[in-house]
Amino acid sequence: RIMRPDDANIAGNVHGGTILKMIEEAGAIISTRHCNSQAGEPCVAALARVERTDFLSPMCIGEVANVSAEITYTSRHSVEVQVNVMSENILTGAKRVTNKATLWYVPLSLKNVNKVVEVPPIQYARKEQEDEGKKRYEEQKLDRLETKQRNGDVILPVINPEPHTVGYSQSSLIHLVGPSDCTLLGFVHGGVTMKLMDEVAGIVAARHCKTNIVTASVDAINFHEKIKKGCVITVSGRMTFTSNKSMEIEVFVDADPFVDEPRERYRAVSAFFTYVSLSKEGKPLPVPQLLTETEDEKRRFEEGKGRYLQTKAKRQAQMQQAAQQ
Amino acid sequence: RIMRPDDANIAGNVHGGTILKMIEEAGAIISTRHCNSQAGEPCVAALARVERTDFLSPMCIGEVANVSAEITYTSRHSVEVQVNVMSENILTGAKRVTNKATLWYVPLSLKNVNKVVEVPPIQYARKEQEDEGKKRYEEQKLDRLETKQRNGDVILPVINPEPHTVGYSQSSLIHLVGPSDCTLLGFVHGGVTMKLMDEVAGIVAARHCKTNIVTASVDAINFHEKIKKGCVITVSGRMTFTSNKSMEIEVFVDADPFVDEPRERYRAVSAFFTYVSLSKEGKPLPVPQLLTETEDEKRRFEEGKGRYLQTKAKRQAQMQQAAQQ
Amino acid sequence: RIMRPDDANIAGNVHGGTILKMIEEAGAIISTRHCNSQAGEPCVAALARVERTDFLSPMCIGEVANVSAEITYTSRHSVEVQVNVMSENILTGAKRVTNKATLWYVPLSLKNVNKVVEVPPIQYARKEQEDEGKKRYEEQKLDRLETKQRNGDVILPVINPEPHTVGYSQSSLIHLVGPSDCTLLGFVHGGVTMKLMDEVAGIVAARHCKTNIVTASVDAINFHEKIKKGCVITVSGRMTFTSNKSMEIEVFVDADPFVDEPRERYRAVSAFFTYVSLSKEGKPLPVPQLLTETEDEKRRFEEGKGRYLQTKAKRQAQMQQAAQQ
Repeated sequence: RIMRPDDANIAGNVHGGTILKMIEEAGAIISTRHCNSQAGEPCVAALARVERTDFLSPMCIGEVANVSAEITYTSRHSVEVQVNVMSENILTGAKRVTNKATLWYVPLSLKNVNKVVEVPPIQYARKEQEDEGKKRYEEQKLDRLETKQRNGDVILPVINPEPHTVGYSQSSLIHLVGPSDCTLLGFVHGGVTMKLMDEVAGIVAARHCKTNIVTASVDAINFHEKIKKGCVITVSGRMTFTSNKSMEIEVFVDADPFVDEPRERYRAVSAFFTYVSLSKEGKPLPVPQLLTETEDEKRRFEEGKGRYLQTKAKRQAQMQQAAQQ
Repeated sequence: RIMRPDDANIAGNVHGGTILKMIEEAGAIISTRHCNSQAGEPCVAALARVERTDFLSPMCIGEVANVSAEITYTSRHSVEVQVNVMSENILTGAKRVTNKATLWYVPLSLKNVNKVVEVPPIQYARKEQEDEGKKRYEEQKLDRLETKQRNGDVILPVINPEPHTVGYSQSSLIHLVGPSDCTLLGFVHGGVTMKLMDEVAGIVAARHCKTNIVTASVDAINFHEKIKKGCVITVSGRMTFTSNKSMEIEVFVDADPFVDEPRERYRAVSAFFTYVSLSKEGKPLPVPQLLTETEDEKRRFEEGKGRYLQTKAKRQAQMQQAAQQ
Repeated sequence: RIMRPDDANIAGNVHGGTILKMIEEAGAIISTRHCNSQAGEPCVAALARVERTDFLSPMCIGEVANVSAEITYTSRHSVEVQVNVMSENILTGAKRVTNKATLWYVPLSLKNVNKVVEVPPIQYARKEQEDEGKKRYEEQKLDRLETKQRNGDVILPVINPEPHTVGYSQSSLIHLVGPSDCTLLGFVHGGVTMKLMDEVAGIVAARHCKTNIVTASVDAINFHEKIKKGCVITVSGRMTFTSNKSMEIEVFVDADPFVDEPRERYRAVSAFFTYVSLSKEGKPLPVPQLLTETEDEKRRFEEGKGRYLQTKAKRQAQMQQAAQQ
């Protein structure tokens, strides 16, 4: 579809959240279609996880986004979908890849939302494809268990914070879940949640560096719990790390099922977003260093540095590999 | 994309206007892309006309709409696009054609909005395709000239109207044209206008028969004049004709460029919509007869009857032809 | 226009904010049109104030809102607009008045946003109309000056609050101002701000009483400062008072012009919203009493009680007057 002014920031760059939402919608359609392709219990695919996603180049207002999706692996109860986003300038005809994302879906029964139904297996062209898929499946399963642990944290407010401290840029928003945010089963689409998360992360980044910022990448996101229609969700973000030219923001999503349910507020999702600051010509700008004050902030900064260096090393390894081929 | 609650009426049937908007977006993308495919002046395709469109079966919330578009004819300054909409139930896998539409676009220069640029010719597989296209082109050109005449009418309000009279159900809405309604050139997308027209026509139909109603077809629509960002548009509808099971509603769009332009309000678009009333099981219901009072109303009723009989005759001829093949 | 699922809460009652947004759009259109009706500087009407608004009965999904607007007074630099909202059930034909609102607009030059242009005077049918309008004009001017004072307050966060305390239900959201939120001059529409305010107030009310709640009335709202495109706005709400069957919530709007402007965060708007809690049959329910803890909270509770008793007395006086006529 054509990117509109509402999809973009004032510099004309499309919000990463808009792209994440389109990616998830494509993933939900293809995996729901696949899971219902054999006679069995009717079901709806629910997003369980998005692998780390890089935003290779910003999309602009007036460009057309072409989204394509393919199922690349199925386990007994989950589906792996690969989604590619191409941006096309219909005036010049220029096309470029802007995103590649891998998503995991779990099919839930239309009759009983707590029941996971079985996934019809796909055919692989080569045996290695199945083996590699299985490896990815095991890896993401492990990672999902791990992140369940770190989910207890809460973002506490700070009074009169200094510029460039963590408290200075931290932000949160509340959103009442309406019918258009939800699937047929009455649960929030993963893409809607990701769009809100990107919105908060972007505001944190802009408050920190006060320039035009764009999403550079999103860490793997795990969707631990479903969020129901009528809930109030609180999306909070705080900066955890800055390198010379990037900012890492941790985002939490908490759900508050306050009407007609006896349940407490719970943590539904958490993730790390990386942003860069761009000049008017679209070049990355240096970013003010994050000032850490408490022990927790310093620890999180070091952890963020670890993730940053790991990603950098991985990227260099890939480049060398590519150069050798 | 997946149809959402907001795309549909309370009975769950997707508004004809939502579908018209998707059709027009697809048409605008493919024709803008084509017109910029050769080195020349950058341009944006503006909708000039939509041929008569039938809604073959209503779409429902949760279904996925697949829209495909193809260029079928080019004249020196215009492009004919054929758009097909398939609705897919991703739970059952069932697919069906819901719409076929033919749209005419005119490419306007990005630098000078009043300049129409030249269209690169397409290749035809067979000579007859070009001849048939040329015939359609001449026909629509003639029809556009004719409708310019009948555009002067105004819908006046009626005090304390009787049920089932024209005045009883006539309706209008105003809309302030915002940035997301507009193309790169700052003019309203044809699809946005058609969605508003369908909304008004639907209200007229529901007021008349007080049941669940759906769009059955839209007469050819001519876009006589562009509507600029910041305009206020008034969309008015009145019933012109009822058969046993259908209602015809005439819709006018007037634009009011009230800020920073000395121009008078002008008629931008007009069209006839046909609605049917559906029972809870989705079967067509009888419709209360329209009570005409004035001479003008009686004349318009007869004209509507003419269009109705003509369409019916055409459809029967097509069916006979199909049966003989 | 027809009320959609997204316009309403899960019980099907249309959000007060949606209605306020429609009212403001109608007011902005009629006053902009009036201010440009004579040869003069092109201008856009900006909302300066909304008088106290009562929501007489909740609107539901599927109903059609009829909004009508009329200019009732003009001073040299401002326009008073009276807007009425009727809700119509198009299936039964039943109509009822749901809202009456009075809005004040100020015309700003399209060329220089800081210049207020002159308003063409309207003709009054009777001299008393002009005198009464002038009285209303003087009163609102006084009130606008007064509220500028009380605007300094900030909503501070509370850690681990007890149920039914002020801290327990207080809420805030951030919103990045996009192109669709703005007028031609690049400033946020008053209606957009009011919709966000109602959203926050509604969440505060729902968190407090955990039932289905609806907007009963909105105190006079003054728009002290314009909010520009690209700003981040923070909308915060806290409960100030509860009667047996109503809750009063104070809402603040702060704007943060953080990109390419050296300006500090500023208070743009503040107002009091009153909510009631409804049973499934639509009857008002008793509301849990607000627990006040600090001196400030107790003072605000007393002030809220004052406003409540004053409104109640006014309404009783009106009823007696009506009974005597």
